[in-house]
Order: sequence, then C-alpha cells, then structure tokens
Amino acid sequence: MKDLLSFGEVMIRLSPPGYQRLEQAASFDVQVGGTELNVAIGAGRLGLEAAYLTRLPENALGRMVRNKIREQGIDTSLIDWSSEERLGLYFVEAGTNPRGGDLIYDRKDSAISKVDAEKIPWDKIFSEVRHYHVTGITAALSPQAGQAVKESIEAAKKAGVTVSFDINYRAKLWSEEEARQCLSPLLPKVDILFSSVGEMKNIFKIQGESIEDAAVTIEEEYGIPVIALMSSKKHSVLRMAWQAVVYSQGVYHEDIPIEVEIADRIGGGDAFAAGFLYAYLKKEGNIQESLRYANATAALKYTNIGDYSWSTLEEVEGLIRGKGGLSMKR
Amino acid sequence: MKDLLSFGEVMIRLSPPGYQRLEQAASFDVQVGGTELNVAIGAGRLGLEAAYLTRLPENALGRMVRNKIREQGIDTSLIDWSSEERLGLYFVEAGTNPRGGDLIYDRKDSAISKVDAEKIPWDKIFSEVRHYHVTGITAALSPQAGQAVKESIEAAKKAGVTVSFDINYRAKLWSEEEARQCLSPLLPKVDILFSSVGEMKNIFKIQGESIEDAAVTIEEEYGIPVIALMSSKKHSVLRMAWQAVVYSQGVYHEDIPIEVEIADRIGGGDAFAAGFLYAYLKKEGNIQESLRYANATAALKYTNIGDYSWSTLEEVEGLIRGKGGLSMKR
Amino acid sequence: MKDLLSFGEVMIRLSPPGYQRLEQAASFDVQVGGTELNVAIGAGRLGLEAAYLTRLPENALGRMVRNKIREQGIDTSLIDWSSEERLGLYFVEAGTNPRGGDLIYDRKDSAISKVDAEKIPWDKIFSEVRHYHVTGITAALSPQAGQAVKESIEAAKKAGVTVSFDINYRAKLWSEEEARQCLSPLLPKVDILFSSVGEMKNIFKIQGESIEDAAVTIEEEYGIPVIALMSSKKHSVLRMAWQAVVYSQGVYHEDIPIEVEIADRIGGGDAFAAGFLYAYLKKEGNIQESLRYANATAALKYTNIGDYSWSTLEEVEGLIRGKGGLSMKR
Amino acid sequence: MKDLLSFGEVMIRLSPPGYQRLEQAASFDVQVGGTELNVAIGAGRLGLEAAYLTRLPENALGRMVRNKIREQGIDTSLIDWSSEERLGLYFVEAGTNPRGGDLIYDRKDSAISKVDAEKIPWDKIFSEVRHYHVTGITAALSPQAGQAVKESIEAAKKAGVTVSFDINYRAKLWSEEEARQCLSPLLPKVDILFSSVGEMKNIFKIQGESIEDAAVTIEEEYGIPVIALMSSKKHSVLRMAWQAVVYSQGVYHEDIPIEVEIADRIGGGDAFAAGFLYAYLKKEGNIQESLRYANATAALKYTNIGDYSWSTLEEVEGLIRGKGGLSMKR
Amino acid sequence: MKDLLSFGEVMIRLSPPGYQRLEQAASFDVQVGGTELNVAIGAGRLGLEAAYLTRLPENALGRMVRNKIREQGIDTSLIDWSSEERLGLYFVEAGTNPRGGDLIYDRKDSAISKVDAEKIPWDKIFSEVRHYHVTGITAALSPQAGQAVKESIEAAKKAGVTVSFDINYRAKLWSEEEARQCLSPLLPKVDILFSSVGEMKNIFKIQGESIEDAAVTIEEEYGIPVIALMSSKKHSVLRMAWQAVVYSQGVYHEDIPIEVEIADRIGGGDAFAAGFLYAYLKKEGNIQESLRYANATAALKYTNIGDYSWSTLEEVEGLIRGKGGLSMKR
Amino acid sequence: MKDLLSFGEVMIRLSPPGYQRLEQAASFDVQVGGTELNVAIGAGRLGLEAAYLTRLPENALGRMVRNKIREQGIDTSLIDWSSEERLGLYFVEAGTNPRGGDLIYDRKDSAISKVDAEKIPWDKIFSEVRHYHVTGITAALSPQAGQAVKESIEAAKKAGVTVSFDINYRAKLWSEEEARQCLSPLLPKVDILFSSVGEMKNIFKIQGESIEDAAVTIEEEYGIPVIALMSSKKHSVLRMAWQAVVYSQGVYHEDIPIEVEIADRIGGGDAFAAGFLYAYLKKEGNIQESLRYANATAALKYTNIGDYSWSTLEEVEGLIRGKGGLSMKR
Repeated sequence: MKDLLSFGEVMIRLSPPGYQRLEQAASFDVQVGGTELNVAIGAGRLGLEAAYLTRLPENALGRMVRNKIREQGIDTSLIDWSSEERLGLYFVEAGTNPRGGDLIYDRKDSAISKVDAEKIPWDKIFSEVRHYHVTGITAALSPQAGQAVKESIEAAKKAGVTVSFDINYRAKLWSEEEARQCLSPLLPKVDILFSSVGEMKNIFKIQGESIEDAAVTIEEEYGIPVIALMSSKKHSVLRMAWQAVVYSQGVYHEDIPIEVEIADRIGGGDAFAAGFLYAYLKKEGNIQESLRYANATAALKYTNIGDYSWSTLEEVEGLIRGKGGLSMKR
Repeated sequence: MKDLLSFGEVMIRLSPPGYQRLEQAASFDVQVGGTELNVAIGAGRLGLEAAYLTRLPENALGRMVRNKIREQGIDTSLIDWSSEERLGLYFVEAGTNPRGGDLIYDRKDSAISKVDAEKIPWDKIFSEVRHYHVTGITAALSPQAGQAVKESIEAAKKAGVTVSFDINYRAKLWSEEEARQCLSPLLPKVDILFSSVGEMKNIFKIQGESIEDAAVTIEEEYGIPVIALMSSKKHSVLRMAWQAVVYSQGVYHEDIPIEVEIADRIGGGDAFAAGFLYAYLKKEGNIQESLRYANATAALKYTNIGDYSWSTLEEVEGLIRGKGGLSMKR
Repeated sequence: MKDLLSFGEVMIRLSPPGYQRLEQAASFDVQVGGTELNVAIGAGRLGLEAAYLTRLPENALGRMVRNKIREQGIDTSLIDWSSEERLGLYFVEAGTNPRGGDLIYDRKDSAISKVDAEKIPWDKIFSEVRHYHVTGITAALSPQAGQAVKESIEAAKKAGVTVSFDINYRAKLWSEEEARQCLSPLLPKVDILFSSVGEMKNIFKIQGESIEDAAVTIEEEYGIPVIALMSSKKHSVLRMAWQAVVYSQGVYHEDIPIEVEIADRIGGGDAFAAGFLYAYLKKEGNIQESLRYANATAALKYTNIGDYSWSTLEEVEGLIRGKGGLSMKR
Repeated sequence: MKDLLSFGEVMIRLSPPGYQRLEQAASFDVQVGGTELNVAIGAGRLGLEAAYLTRLPENALGRMVRNKIREQGIDTSLIDWSSEERLGLYFVEAGTNPRGGDLIYDRKDSAISKVDAEKIPWDKIFSEVRHYHVTGITAALSPQAGQAVKESIEAAKKAGVTVSFDINYRAKLWSEEEARQCLSPLLPKVDILFSSVGEMKNIFKIQGESIEDAAVTIEEEYGIPVIALMSSKKHSVLRMAWQAVVYSQGVYHEDIPIEVEIADRIGGGDAFAAGFLYAYLKKEGNIQESLRYANATAALKYTNIGDYSWSTLEEVEGLIRGKGGLSMKR
Repeated sequence: MKDLLSFGEVMIRLSPPGYQRLEQAASFDVQVGGTELNVAIGAGRLGLEAAYLTRLPENALGRMVRNKIREQGIDTSLIDWSSEERLGLYFVEAGTNPRGGDLIYDRKDSAISKVDAEKIPWDKIFSEVRHYHVTGITAALSPQAGQAVKESIEAAKKAGVTVSFDINYRAKLWSEEEARQCLSPLLPKVDILFSSVGEMKNIFKIQGESIEDAAVTIEEEYGIPVIALMSSKKHSVLRMAWQAVVYSQGVYHEDIPIEVEIADRIGGGDAFAAGFLYAYLKKEGNIQESLRYANATAALKYTNIGDYSWSTLEEVEGLIRGKGGLSMKR
Repeated sequence: MKDLLSFGEVMIRLSPPGYQRLEQAASFDVQVGGTELNVAIGAGRLGLEAAYLTRLPENALGRMVRNKIREQGIDTSLIDWSSEERLGLYFVEAGTNPRGGDLIYDRKDSAISKVDAEKIPWDKIFSEVRHYHVTGITAALSPQAGQAVKESIEAAKKAGVTVSFDINYRAKLWSEEEARQCLSPLLPKVDILFSSVGEMKNIFKIQGESIEDAAVTIEEEYGIPVIALMSSKKHSVLRMAWQAVVYSQGVYHEDIPIEVEIADRIGGGDAFAAGFLYAYLKKEGNIQESLRYANATAALKYTNIGDYSWSTLEEVEGLIRGKGGLSMKR
C-alpha cells in the first residue's frame, strides 16, 4: 500500500551555470523535474511511500529520468514506456534583480502527452494507494493527458482515495478560459486544493477583499474541504518571504513568513504540497501542523538546486522548531 | 555575391563531458551543428564567402544558434524566424573501443521541418550566389523540407548556380527506399556528389567489384560530373585512416590515407565537402587539388571538438604540405 | 549605412570562477570586452546597425576576439589585422562585501596601442555612419591611439556625424592632469557626453553644490548639447541602486533608481551609453526616453556575466514598463 | 523472489578529472563503487532482480550512496544503517603509459567493517533469493566482515541458494597467507568461482603449465563446478585485449579476445561476473553463452566512467553479435 | 627565528560546487584547512614568519596537504610523516537562508590523533619561535593530541614563548564538561585567549550581564592578559555584521562592526586570530590596533573561498583605512 | 647549501580543456611553467634541495607564480620583485593526430626580460650552491637576460659550481644564427649539455653520419664533459617512444626506449634534465644511472598534466625497475 501516487510529466531541465544567460551557454547543468514528481519526491523524502506514474521514451534519456526517480526511492514500476515519442525538456536561466530569468519549454508531443487513459488500469492502481495528487499542468498538456486527469480523479474517488490538486496555471500551456472550463468540473471532487489568490481571481473569478474572503468563497462554491493558498513577498529576484494560508472547515490557518535567499526559484509550491501531504497523511489531518511542514519544506526548497526538495524530515522539523539556517552544527 | 549558399537544419548538440554516457550525465556541453551548416562554416573558414539559409525559433535558443553561425562569419540574413516551432536537438555520447557511442535525435517538428518553400525568394537568392550545397538530410526531414530541397535545386540550376549534394543517408530519418525515390530524380541535376560506396550500393543499388567500378556506374547512370566517395579504415573507435576517391570525367583520383586520432566523431564528411568546395571554387575546378584540401580538412576535423571544422587555411595547407601534427611550432 | 561606429581596444578578460581570488585560480573563465565594444554590442542587440574598429593580432586569440564581435552581429570588416603585436588582456576577480575585487590590466603594447591613424580612411568610414562613439580609455592607451581619437573625432564632425564621448577615467592608464590636457580640447566637439560628477570634479575641476549645478557648468563651459551623468548608490559589493541624470538644452532629466543585485560589476556604464544611443538614434533624440532605455539597459547589464549587455529590446522595454525581474513567465 | 543478492562494502570514489594526479587535484569527481555492488548493478542492468546488503552511516554521504544504488534499480531495503561509523572512501587517479595511476584506500573502520553477522537474518534473506555473490574483499575488511562472509555462505548453502565467489585479492587489505587461510575452507561451498591464474598460483599455490592445467587443478582440489579465470593482454595503460576462460565439468571454454580502449580501469572483473551471472541465471546455466555475456559486459565496462557497468542488455548482445563500437547508429 | 608556530590537524575539505547539497554532489571542490593552520597562513600572509607542526600520512594526499602549506610560505620542516595513519577529511555544503548548510567530519584516527608528544623535541622547537598558537580542537582530537597540547604549552612557557589559545569548542568532538576539565588547567598559562561569550558561559560557566562583565570575570578567574571575544550579528545565512571585543589590563576595546556578504562561512575566527597575532607581534602589543587588524582580516576572510585568508597586508590595511570593498580600483 | 639553482622565466600557461582549440575556448586551465623552473621542480621532487631565481611582478599573478614554486618546495627567497613589468604568458592547445596543437607566447617585456645582471649578487649566490642550470631560452629573452646568463655562468665557474645548459632552441625567440653567436662562447664552460641532434646540426653545424658521431664532434669542438642528446620516435600526436643518449669521456650510453601515451606534450626535455641532474648529483656522477633516471623522469612527465614533473622518486625508481604503469597497486 503506497501513501501517495502522483501522475504527470517529467522533463529534463537544462540550465546554464550560475547567472549565465541561455543565449550564452557553453554547457547546461542537467536536472529532472515536473510538478507532480516534485511533490512525490518531496513527500517521499520526508517519509511517505510514494509512486509516480508517467510515460517515458525507451532510450538513454528516458532511462536517466527513470533513474533519477528511483534514486529518490519513488516507485517507478507504473511507468509506461514508449518506443515512439520524445521526452519533454525545458531550458531555464537564473537571474538577479532586475532580471527575473527566462524559461523555455520544449515539451510538445512528449511521451506523456500521448498517454492513453484507456490503457491505464486505474482501478487496480487506486486499490493500492491512500492518496492521489495531480495538477493543472498535466491537464493542460494535451487532450489525452487532460482526459487521463479527469478519469484518474474519478477512479480515485470511486476507490475512496483522497485527492489533492494544484491549479498550477501555466500561461504558456493554455488560456485562463481553457483552464477554467477544464478544471471547474474537477474541483468539487478535490479534497485538498493548492492554489493562489491570483489563480482564484483570474481563472475562477473568485472575488474578495482579502485572502480570507477568497478562501471562503472557494469553499462555498466548490465545497473543497482543504484550501491552501500560497503566496510570497518578493523583495528582489534573490530574496523573498514565503508564506501561505489554509482554510479548512471554517478555520483560517496561517503561520509566520520565512525569509528566503533563493538559490533556485523552481519548485517551491511543489515542495509546499509535499510537506503538506506528508504531515496531513502522517498527522491525522492536523491542518495547522500540515501548514507548518508545508511552509518549512517550501522555504528549504528554494535553498536547493534542482526542481524538487532534497530536505530530510530532520531538517524540516529543525526549521519548524526554529533551528533553521543561521548556524551550522560543528 | 556569395561563393556558397547552403540550406538545412541547425540543431543544438548536447553531449556529456569526456566518455560519460548520456544516461549518467550531470551536465551537457553545448555545440551547434547541422550537416549543411558544417559545410558552410568549414568552407567559410578557409576563405569562401558563405551564407546559410535555415529556419529558427525566435527565442534565446534560436538566437544562440544564429550567434554561433555569425561567430564564424557566415551570413545569417536569410534566416527565416519562426514564432511557433521548436529547435531541433540531438544528444550524443562519445565511446571508446568496443563502445561506439550513442546518438539520440530530437528534431521532430523543428522549425525547419515546417519551412514553406513557396515563401522563399529562390530566384533572388540564387542571383547572388555561385554555388549551392544541400544534402539528403534536409530532404528527409519532412515533406515541406523535401519540397524545398527539390525547388531549391531547380531554382539554382535555372540561375546557373552549380549544385553539390551529399547523400548523407540517415536510417533514423527515412528508409532506403524512401531515400531512393526522393533523391533519384535530383541526382541528374547535381554537379558534385558526395557519398560513399555503402550508400551507392544500399540506396541506389549500384553494383561493382571495386570502388572505381561504383563511381563509373554512378557517372553513367546519373551523369554527375564530379563524384566523391568517402571512406575510412576504422582501426578502433578512437583511431582510423581517412581516405576518399573522386571520379570525374573519366579520371579516378585518390590520395594517401591520413591517420587520425579521433577527438570528435561527428562532421568529418561535412568537413570533406567544405575542403573540396573551397578548393574547387578557388582553384578552377582542379579535382586532384580539391581532393587534397578535402582530405586534409576532413582529417583535421576529427581532431576538433564540435560538429564543424575550426581549421584555418594555413593549417589545412600545412597538412597538405606534410607539416601536420607531429610537432608544435615553438 | 551603419547607425553606429565605435573605436577602441578589445581585451580578453580572464576571471576565476565564482568568488575565487586571482591568486588561487586553477582556471579562468574567458570573456572579451572593451568599453567601446561593449557600447557597440549593447546598442547592436537593441537594434542599431553597428560596426567596430579595432586592431587585432593575426592569431588564434585575435580570431577568437573577432568571432565574439561577429557573434553579436557587429560588423568587423574594418578590423586592422597586425602580424606583430599582442592582444591586451585583463584579469578580474569578483568580491563580496567588504572586498571589492581586484583587476589587473595587461594591455601594454597591445596591437591597438600601435594603431597608425594615418592609415585609417576616416573620411570613407564616416561617410557610411550616422553616429560615432569613443572614450577616454582609447585616448589614454598610447600617443598613437590618442592621436587616432583626436583625428577620428575631427573627421566625424567634418562628415556631419554626431559624436558621443565617455570620459571613462582610468587611474591605471593616466593621471587626472594628463586626462584633462588631452580631453579638454575634444569636449567642445562632442554631442553627447557620458561621465560622472566625480570625473567632472576631479578631472575638469567643475564646481557645484549639486549634480544639477555640475551639469549646468559643463554645458556652459564646453557647450555640449547632451550631458549624461551616471551614478549609483552602493549598498554593498553585491547590491546597489543605479541611477543617472541627463542635462540637455536647459532641462534636467532624471528617473527612479533601479535596485540591482550585481552578478558582474563590469560594463554598467557602457550599457548605459548603449541604451541611450539606441533610443536617441531611434526615438528622434527624445532625452527622457533615452534616459529610460539607458537606465534599464545598465541595470540589466549588472545581472549578466561578461562585460557587455546580453539584453534584448524586449527585455529592456519590459523593464521600462515595470515588468522586470520579479517573476519569470511560465 | 530476487535473482541475486550480493553483500559487501560501498565506498565513495574520488578522482581528479582527466589525467590529473591526486597530488595536484583541485576537484574530485564523485562515484560510488564496491566490487559486490558493481556485480549487482551490472547484472541488474541486464535484467536480474538484484538486492544489495551493506552497512552505511546515517548521514548525507550514506544517503548519497543509498541513492546511487537505488538509481540503478537495486533493492536497498536490506541496508543496515549505522549511527556511528564512517563511510569507506577511495581516491584514484588515471594514468597513461608508462604511469599506471595511483589508488589510495581510506576504508578502515568503515560501517561495513563493524557489521554484526549475528544480527542479520540470513535465513529469512536467503529464503527470497536465487543466487548469492560475495568476494574476498569483504572477507578481508575486518574479522567481523570475514565472519559475516563465512556465515552468509553457510546460510545460503543451507537454503539451497547457489553461491558465486570472486577471490579479488587485495594486497593492501591482507597477505596472501591470510587470504589462503580464510578462503580455502570456503571454496568447496562455492558454485561459481571468479579468479585469475595469478591468484591461483600466488594464493592457493596451484601449479600448472597452462591456464587450462590451473583450472583442472582447482576443480580437483576444491570441487568447484564452474571456474572462471579472467585475464587480459595489456598493450599499454590505455589499451588491452580482454579475455577469460571458464572450466566446467571437464570442459574448457574460451572466446576471442576483445580489444579495449580503456576509459576507466576499475571494475572490469566485476562486470565480467555480472555478465556471467546474468546469462548463467537466465540461460539455464549455458557456460559458453555465459562466458560471451561476461566478456562483452567486461569489455564494455572499460569504456564507461565509474566502477560499474552502465551497459544495457541490448548493448551487450549487440557486441556479442559483432556490432560493437566501430560505428554509431544515426 | 620564527615569529609564530602553530600545531594541529590539517584536513582535506570536500565541498560540492555552489549551493549543491552533499547528498547530490557529482564533484567536490578540494581545499585544505584546519584551525591552527588557518591562523598560521593568515598571519604568514600578512608578514609573520610562521611554521606549522602537524602529522601527515606519507602518500599523495599527505603530499598535497604539505604542498598547500608550503604554497603559502609556511615552514613545513617540522611535519611528522606517518606511514600508517589516514588523513582527516571533512565534507561541507553551503546554504542560503533558511538552510545553514551541513558539515560532516571524517577525522577519526587521523595521523595527528596518533601524535606521540614524547617524540617531539619541544624544547628545541620553542628555542626558535617567538609565539605559539594552539586551540581546543587539537586538544579534543584524541588523548594523545590532548597530551601534546598540554606538553607543548608547558614547554612554550618554559622557553619564554608567549601562547595564544582559541577555545574553538566543537560539539561533535567532545562534551562541554570534557572541554572544561581539559582546558581549565591550561588557561592560566595562556597569554592571549580567543573565545566567545557563548563558550565562556556554556563551558566555563562565566556569568555576567554583559560581554564586558564576562571578560572581566575571565580575567579575574584565569589571569589571562588578553581576552578577545568574537561575535557576529547574523542577518541571514549569507549576510552578517562581524565584530569582536578585547579586554586587556582593565581596558575594554571595541571597534565598529563590519558588514559581510558571506562567500564561505568557514575560518572567520581563525582569520581574526591571524590578524590579531600579526599586529600584536608587529605593533608592540598595541591592543586597539591588533583588534582592528583582527576584525579586518576576519571580515575579509568571509569573502574568500576556502578555510584560510588569502588577504594581503595591503588589503587588510586598506579596509582598516576605510577603502574596503565598494569600488574596484581600475 | 642548495644542490641546485636554476634561473629563468616563469610564465602562466593558459590552455583550453581537453582538445578544444584556443579559438573556441570558454575557459582556460591555469598552470605555471618555464624550462628552468621545470628542471628545478622535477629535480626537487626527486630529492635535490633546489632554488629558483626569477623576476616577478608584485601583484596577484606574481604571487600565484611564487606560490606554485613554493608549493613544490623550491626556495623562492632569491626572487626579484618588480613593481613595473608584466608576467609572461603562454597559450597552448593540445591536438590529436594529425593536428599537433598550437602555442602562442605572450612573453615580451616580461619582468624577467628586464633583469639587471648587475644587481644580482652572483658571488654570494653561488657560494651556497652545488650546481647551476640555465638554458638558451633565458639567453634569448632579451639582451639583459642574455647578459645575465653569460655573467651567471662565469660567476658559477669562478665559484667552482658545475654548470648544465640546455640549448632549448625556440624559433619564435631568435634565429639559429643569433643562437649560435650567443651560445657558442658559453659552451666550453658547460659541464653538462642537454640538446638534440637537430639543434646540433642546425645551430652549431655539427656534421656526422650518426648520433654518436655528432656527440663525438661536439665533445671535440667544445670540450664538454657530458653531452646528452634527447630524441623521440613520434608514432602520432598522442603516442611516441622516448629515448636519449649520453656521451661522456669517450663512452656512449644508451638505454631502451620507453613507450609513452602523451597526456601533456610540454616539459619532457626539462624532466629529462631534472632526472639526470638528480642522479648525477646523488649518484657520484654515474652516467648510465643518470641516463636511466633521466629517461624515466621524462617518460613519466608526458603522463602528467602541466609543464613540470609531479613524479616521486619512488615512481621514477619503480619505472626503472620495470614496474611502471601497466598495473595499479591495489
């Protein structure tokens, strides 16, 4: 029995060293990432038993991606191997103020975008899983992937598996209108929603004077038991304060912001979800506790190179207890 | 007036350092390459005025490719910028005996494959060019690219521009049958053919006991004035002897083989064509001389990292005069 | 017809990775740079047609420098190739507070310092150019280079070409007294002056309570139509606020400071001039607009590795419109 | 049910880039390796289900090692985590003729050397495994490790699990006399022995005019069903011809030597064992076939960076069918 | 006659590039360091004649360490070469807020821990030295090393050599109780004590409302002529303000804090001691002057990669005169 | 009393990684070297007490060079520090067959070329030295350096110090005629001459059918007691057989050639001299023994990265005893 299954793409991430621009790169550092994988790994490192469902081409690059997932202890036995399609890639450069960096996706027609939902044994899969996580990115990849997201959520619910969903709106993949039409019918089936006030306003047209108002309105509209809204106060490209709120069953939870020096901008929200799911599944659904783990995991992610968290449970709990960062134990 | 125009794809080449496998890469060295570009650059470095026609996406990666072409003094003003498509990529690892290395193309749906031959002002372009070079790779990329190859050769001939063609058969792009059907009608329009005995046998079903026989048969069948057949004796993955023959107007030309320690396997044939075209266009079509420049440029290419030649005219002529390699002038 | 010609040295820049000291370097990253080249490239990337005039040794290093200029689309056909002299070099290390970094010039007797102004066809050159940019560094390199600066400015004015001049005082090249004696006679011929309050005070003995006073006094003394004075508030070695003012025809222009996290300290002033000249030549001399482009180009330069700007027009205009930096479009 | 269990140390391997000496290193490339692990990974990549038993310290380095094992799909659930001891390390430099390279072990008091054989549930472990592999290196590490080797072999035999053993004599760990006294009693329990003529002569005092004689004598003396003796003809530090013989049930098997250009000297024998065990367990004990897989896997290992094989089954079988190396499929 | 002798361990420091975690390292940058060596090098670079006494294994790693010490001009003739033991290592990763970084020592049973105090000719050594520096780390390494610290201090005092001691408490090496019992008897023999308020409180149970009170109490209790207490205000993992106070002969000295952007966290305290000892020995014991040199050397250390200071006397004095950091002399 | 003093330049060597061309370099690896320094270091590593006399600029680069000399245990106390001049540099790329690599010197007007022989206390220096080594390169650098070579040899002879001289003809520094005129008068004062048949023929017009004849003729003409003529059979750019002969007191010594795989082409002759001088000074002038040490040190040098030998005495003697290279002791 796995604690967590997530489903989505994995891309190879190529980034020039340091603050070099993409245009001037003589070499690329290689990472792998993908929002749902980042969640599985982040949560797996804290202690959940996790599996990842994706589709990969059967070549050295596909094997590299599979290896990186295995490296983190995530079950790869569900991977659907393709002899045809390509692997998604993305190119990313880091910036400093006032340059935010650039990001080029090259993920069109990747293996996962050709996934055939019919061939995936959802019922069998969900009979061996406690919780399922998926995001709006997978839904946006292609009609086939969107269909798979829809079917998977239905199958999960049918099997009594709880579902978390991260809106993760990507303007490069679809319009706000397309996102709303696809995702609105899914939201009522979601147990835990990860999003932001911006997404709620722009995509779902949620109104509200405050972040609290927004959360209440979502709850009313979609009946989602747990709603986590992430935010951050950006001081500059390299520094920010991370925070988030969770609204659940009429209670509004928040925590003190965490000051972050950003070593790598990607994957903070995924780490938040990872930390949240870990604690939610291990601490009997305690929301305030889950928020604390989520915030600490997210803040620590920004200090790590790569898309996903390399934190251990000890590090996350150390930060929660206030022992983060300022001195190194010698 | 340009001496040389070539037309085709440019890909970003990603290769792990040293003899690392693709599957184990933590970083990729970045090069750009493409067979026709390699010819333009190789010949341009020796002294031809050259231009390159390709189609690139309008983003940092497309600009990087454009920059690398400009860096070598090749005219990029004909580039067709696309706001839609992607850039072709390929991943390559180097081997040592008995592992030859691996190569993964990821070039499907690249910008060049969507080239619209109708929109390219071929007549205007060929009014400002002496010689045109293209290869079977461009023809194989997509129906649109194949159409552009066909139209471009016809337009070149109409404008009185000489044409060279490199078969460059790639089993990963098309079958031998497809290649024959596409290329056979083009061959009679070609002034200089670059190929190998293997390609002649397997694709064009040329028979013959010897390499000389094969050349004679091609000449008879297609009426091509100059036929260069490249070959190499491979001692091991890292060492070989390069040689080639040229058959032209009833005369069979050959030269002594050159022993090569291979620093980079890619682009030797392209460098051969570059050296040949340089001398052919600068030395009044002297075939024996052109073969010498071609062989020297090819052999030196294998000592350079990257797809195209970085040799200077002085270095190529030094090797022809027998001053290659064994000591460094101090 | 080129929009811009600039004239000066190009050096190879050698810097150890990260924050390593020069003394502890096991490798050097290689860049090329030179103040006037930085201006040509910065402006060329935004959209000016630019050419660069310099003198380079005819060897692999000279070719590398020529390639890097071509890579950015700058016309290199005016380069004067030398079979004798060396290439200038400089070694630079980056610091963090409170260490500002070190810089060692090794540019004595470089090819450009032996330039022979007599042999350069200034009249022909300036008949094909709209604007000419040069700086006090070239003037300071050697008597020959100083003479060439003087003659070139005179030839430009004679041809009706507008001239911009950046004082760029370098204490390692000459004394303030030498600078004043050489540059004072040139200033009345200058259309756009780039400098700082410090240079004005120390070299030209301009008095004034405020930066505005200084600008007025320069205008009165030398009759320069456009005077740009750059400044920055340095918070620490890695952070500053960039700003500048321009005084022209009795009007004093300023803009809001831009907060900068410094990835590379070199070339900010050159990028300022590049942005200014781009907008000045493309926006009909609109000073306020030119100042905005100049500030944005300068601020973005500090985020790029290397001496010159790698920004695109889209990035500069994005920052002007307030979309700089804090989030990455996904 | 696992096909293969192996048991031993894993060390972090630190090597300076290229042909740098250890003494001049400014950085070390990081690999992990250990003879038994190398066998498990090599065989696992070909298709065996494999598990590894070792003891690791509970810190970032121990986790890195665990990750690298998982990355290759090897089961790590049997790892014994230690909160006390250190991880073994070794430093290795590569040479060229006539310098063979240097190697410094720093493995004393590593976690595995403190393994407590009593606490390992051998019977349970061997009830879920088909074959067990261990070597003389583990036996030599410490008295505790030696005891664990002894007990494990006995438990394996009791459970009906076949056992392979690689002598792997290391002069830096123990004397020939110590090795003989420890290993002689174990040999009669071994089903497949990996060794060399040198080890047989020097340690076990096997006499014989030829390699065949030696094999016969071992068979007579210890009754081992399958005896593989590896050898190589070293042309230089970078080139050799790999070969090996197997003696089994009165039949002497050999195969043609494979010419090798050595990219990394470590782990060839381990890859041999990996290839042998794969084919032996998958091809119903066919010795000649097993020898072919073993030789191909060994030869390919030398072309890979790192201690263990990165070859796929397709690559090994390609080499067996004679398609190794000399050209790259494009 | 040497100005300074220090005695202790030297370890190889292995750290992954940039902000990579230890667990994800594919390579390690190599440095050497050790608190007493850092002091010797820091002071040697400023102008003291210094020697270092340590014990190293006789292999390539030991030679590398010896070379690095010689590289800085420190006398290595007293090194005790061991044919048996290993070299201490430590692994360190850098963090950003809120991750402070991790550090793993692997120094157990290193050569220095087996030092035999009996065999060291202390009397001869101290007859050629003005000042001796040692720290609590050496004392904590092993009983033998602790004994050597004790004997060396006694021998130094007997020879009229002044002694400085840095408490340098390391929780990974011993408990506070062990430290107090070992160090308390040594303190009355110390001429200059380097420590912090935290160490004084936790280990020596010094009470006091203020840092001044603490210093007075130490003076009263142990009669140490010069007591330097270092401190820093940590703004974040990457930024702090360095400061320190010195209490001597009833006078309490302090200086303005120095803002620091931390490039490398290790060795600030050692650089403080180095700067202090340099000025103390060269400036006739002027305490205020010594504090200024100490603070400047410490602050500059944090801007350098590696454990020890690479500053020159000119740089330290430049910072003292207020010319540190914000601009680079060109 | 030093065993060996040598005198000459030290340059920083900049070389792109692997087989990259200079023209394509994005980074340079940094080494230091210079023929006489290479000899001092090579011999110092084997066991001679050595000192180096050179002239360096007083900046970070000069300090880096000084550090690298100290790192190898060579006495740097005689270095003449210059506040004015620059450091010599050279750029070198490695090739593979048939490209031999390129080398660009940038050493004009370096500090050593301005050496003032008058200010060097030769008599005092030579009163503390057993043997002096210098080469034709230093003589060729500048008139001042040539004068210093002449004076130094005379002073050495006067002090009874033996002198070795390596012709080391560099066509980039002077003509053969200039070399002959400068060096001929010096040869009769030389005790040990290092040269090659080529240099003897081309510069000194020595005739002779065989290498033996040449040696005899030199002996007759200049009366040099020991004449070593180095040679190598170059199989390709990466492989050769090293050998040398020595003629002394009527006896002609030779040794078996050593097959070499070349990791770095520079400095083989210097290592030969280093090995020769070590054995000559330590083995009572035994010529055959000295030749063996010389050959082994030279051959091993080619396997090391950098200009000078990193071999230990143990390695050299191991190779002499036939234990070189083919296996690594484990």
